[in-house]
Amino acid sequence: MQLTGKSLIAGHWEKGSELGFNAINPALNTPLSQTYYNATEQLIEKAIEEANSAFAVYSLLSANQRAEFLRKIADNILDLGEQLIDVCNQETGLTKDRIVTERSRTLHQLTLYAQQIESQEYLPVFEAADANRKPLPKPDIRLGYIPLGVVGVFAASNFPLAYSTCGGDTASALAAGCCVIMKAHTSHPGTSELVASAVLKAIEECELPKGVFSLIQGDDYQLSTKIVKHPKVKAIGFTGSERVGMILQRQVYDREDPIPFYGELGSTNPQFLLPSKLSENPEQLAQLFVESVTLGQGQFCTNPGLWVVLKDEKDNDSYTRFSNMCSEKIKVKQAGVMLTPDIAKDYQRSVDNFKQLDGVMCIAHGQRAKFEHFCAPALFETNVKTFLNSQELRTEVFGPCAVIVLCESFKDVIRVVDNMKGNLTASIHANQSDREHVMFLSHKLANKVGRLIYNQMSTGVEVCGAMNHGGPFPASTDIRSTSVGNESIKRFQRPICYQNMPEDFLPCLLKKC
Amino acid sequence: MQLTGKSLIAGHWEKGSELGFNAINPALNTPLSQTYYNATEQLIEKAIEEANSAFAVYSLLSANQRAEFLRKIADNILDLGEQLIDVCNQETGLTKDRIVTERSRTLHQLTLYAQQIESQEYLPVFEAADANRKPLPKPDIRLGYIPLGVVGVFAASNFPLAYSTCGGDTASALAAGCCVIMKAHTSHPGTSELVASAVLKAIEECELPKGVFSLIQGDDYQLSTKIVKHPKVKAIGFTGSERVGMILQRQVYDREDPIPFYGELGSTNPQFLLPSKLSENPEQLAQLFVESVTLGQGQFCTNPGLWVVLKDEKDNDSYTRFSNMCSEKIKVKQAGVMLTPDIAKDYQRSVDNFKQLDGVMCIAHGQRAKFEHFCAPALFETNVKTFLNSQELRTEVFGPCAVIVLCESFKDVIRVVDNMKGNLTASIHANQSDREHVMFLSHKLANKVGRLIYNQMSTGVEVCGAMNHGGPFPASTDIRSTSVGNESIKRFQRPICYQNMPEDFLPCLLKKC
Repeated sequence: MQLTGKSLIAGHWEKGSELGFNAINPALNTPLSQTYYNATEQLIEKAIEEANSAFAVYSLLSANQRAEFLRKIADNILDLGEQLIDVCNQETGLTKDRIVTERSRTLHQLTLYAQQIESQEYLPVFEAADANRKPLPKPDIRLGYIPLGVVGVFAASNFPLAYSTCGGDTASALAAGCCVIMKAHTSHPGTSELVASAVLKAIEECELPKGVFSLIQGDDYQLSTKIVKHPKVKAIGFTGSERVGMILQRQVYDREDPIPFYGELGSTNPQFLLPSKLSENPEQLAQLFVESVTLGQGQFCTNPGLWVVLKDEKDNDSYTRFSNMCSEKIKVKQAGVMLTPDIAKDYQRSVDNFKQLDGVMCIAHGQRAKFEHFCAPALFETNVKTFLNSQELRTEVFGPCAVIVLCESFKDVIRVVDNMKGNLTASIHANQSDREHVMFLSHKLANKVGRLIYNQMSTGVEVCGAMNHGGPFPASTDIRSTSVGNESIKRFQRPICYQNMPEDFLPCLLKKC
Repeated sequence: MQLTGKSLIAGHWEKGSELGFNAINPALNTPLSQTYYNATEQLIEKAIEEANSAFAVYSLLSANQRAEFLRKIADNILDLGEQLIDVCNQETGLTKDRIVTERSRTLHQLTLYAQQIESQEYLPVFEAADANRKPLPKPDIRLGYIPLGVVGVFAASNFPLAYSTCGGDTASALAAGCCVIMKAHTSHPGTSELVASAVLKAIEECELPKGVFSLIQGDDYQLSTKIVKHPKVKAIGFTGSERVGMILQRQVYDREDPIPFYGELGSTNPQFLLPSKLSENPEQLAQLFVESVTLGQGQFCTNPGLWVVLKDEKDNDSYTRFSNMCSEKIKVKQAGVMLTPDIAKDYQRSVDNFKQLDGVMCIAHGQRAKFEHFCAPALFETNVKTFLNSQELRTEVFGPCAVIVLCESFKDVIRVVDNMKGNLTASIHANQSDREHVMFLSHKLANKVGRLIYNQMSTGVEVCGAMNHGGPFPASTDIRSTSVGNESIKRFQRPICYQNMPEDFLPCLLKKC
């Protein structure tokens, strides 16, 4: 397939303006040849109007029809074959193996959500009429869930397939019965165009209205504002930085009608390492921790960026062994390519800054980079007081970097928890002898995270029915929602009650069809 | 019990400042003798801090323990006996019969939500571990729901029991495992103090931390701001006007962390009357409509304030008969007391204004009031063009007033729907011959309302498992939530995922206890 650089507006590939941008090959730090054209506000208007018209049809389809559509999309993404892997590799610097794995996850999400809606997990609640009830007869009442409307989705840079064009947000919105306006990420526009073509093919195969899905290309922030503020857009899904996320959140606040804004904005994913566990096998733990923080160049939202270690006062040795092994493992790590040169620059700036901070010690730094757009892992150590006084140390660094906060007492550990912002995840590493601490800590931490883990690292997110990928702000702007797993579909639906309504007039979800 | 005029701050009755206010007896339009003192910001700070500490204990109780607490509250409210009915009658002008009925609803809510949490409707989702899964082993993952934290609740004037101190919002928040800071409504402070004393008694009987519930008295808006902006308050429940609701909503927007704001702000509850139904028995329909719009002086959130009538072009007679009977029924209605003199003034101003509008005809007005704080029902008629051009006609009038929009074609009906804001409810009045119109209209209306009703009036809200009391803005500021019924509990909980966590460390909701 020949890439065009155009946006997909309700079935038509449109150039929009002559202005455009080129993606960067981050491995080479050079622009790629294809230009992608900025969509215009008029095109976005058209996409949203068409999405709104399509919604009247798409929202009334049966679960089976929507499921068939999702499966066709999955088939068509797979059919893109090697071209998708190649283009994505050039645009993101991710290895082909990683991209193939991510593609599997993307297809899995689509088919899992298809199964989920077919299984009708949201069985409606019925309350039968009772004509003889006193003082008043009871009417027939049925509660069901219907889709919200047109959903705007903003793609993530770090999951060019699984959280972009037809990633988790799009898949769950389409499963819910919503139509999608997708703002492609500027770091992988070719990947986005390919996936959008797979969605369009599925729309044609299922004979759906073309407005069900549109893809907006462009590097002009006004385009995002246009989507977020449009009265016919009824929910937003976003994965990205706290800075950009909060700009969009505030634009949502400016609307006349409040709509849900599902932003996943950042997380340090603290690892709590308790003394008895630490003393078991410090070297093995160190390897586990270093592997996790350097996985995929530390560019996962669940990257463990904060290690809160409680030392046993009578056992200095275990922590020294842990720290030495971490240092040994990190020092030999090669610098690697980051998703974009800007991410590399931000990462390097944070690491350089940490090195300057009073009370912060650099334990280890990986092999120096050959190029400035390559980054190496780094590990720092500090004490509780320094940590609590430093806004910077408590903020997520996107990349393979972690800060160890060394605690002298359990009280110190709790002070860290009490001063923690919200997180996607936290892990407690402990054994039976740490039992009392775990009991207290797990209840405390439950109110600070979306997922609480025992003796496992935070990287690796199961896409399944029991997953929650969210949590208190800034992990998520909506603590009541998950962006991964079957429950993510519910974000894009809302309750409706039908009273005394003949079966003929009920929508599909409230009757057999 | 002797009323004190004090706020209840985590178990202590506190006066706060010397400044205060007196409730008005709306039937006499004179102040009542008891002064209620404005709480101070310091007292609110104390209440919230205590609530946050209490949350650490209360949130970990089993469902059975919370259910027992809710039932004790219900018992204690009933034990307040005649005093509650008398004080409430003096403060609201509602008849004693109505108050007794509302008390039943309030007790029903508490016991229904107790049953709901005991039945563990939120069964957690389990995914079993699979050590042999390739490429990576699958961990044990469990999804459950935990309470959000401290909830601020703002009482409604029109339900002094069922949507005030221990009404729906409080009952659902306590059922969810949250602690409550209740801002009493200034129109019925004595009723609030009595109910708060019943909650305190239940707290003592169940030996719960006193911070579980506090009651804030005061007529100073700063007190509300203090609650809404406090970092330890994690959700807000509000029922009231769009004007006040949006002030609070914007204060929520100013917070550093977004929290859910559940505001129920207003609804015109349109009634769609289709031609075949109209011709069946116009007089009977007219009586039904007039009864509903005048019920409880039209002071229900589900009051049918907009009647969209489609005339059959060949049948002028039916509408004339309907309209004549409406007029007949309304003309003989006596003026009655409104909840507050301010509500009476606002109502009278709206009705007087409608009488001045071009293209609007007053069909009937009830008996002139003896006093200016008594109001009579009124019915107006207009055409689609006038209606669509008038912001005022499309806005809720709180009281026994309705506007008939007479439509010449079904296309006109749809224009009204397309230009409608969100509503709590809408009703379609139709029969088999209106079938095609109903099919189209019901799908259109579903996206504009929280509850869609067939051949019944909108007044009367079942408190049950299938109820949805919410809808698109301004009916609700959060379309995904209901403020009535079992599902209202979910508003105050959020998902959490436990991964690989030994049973001992799981909270009650995720294990047997």
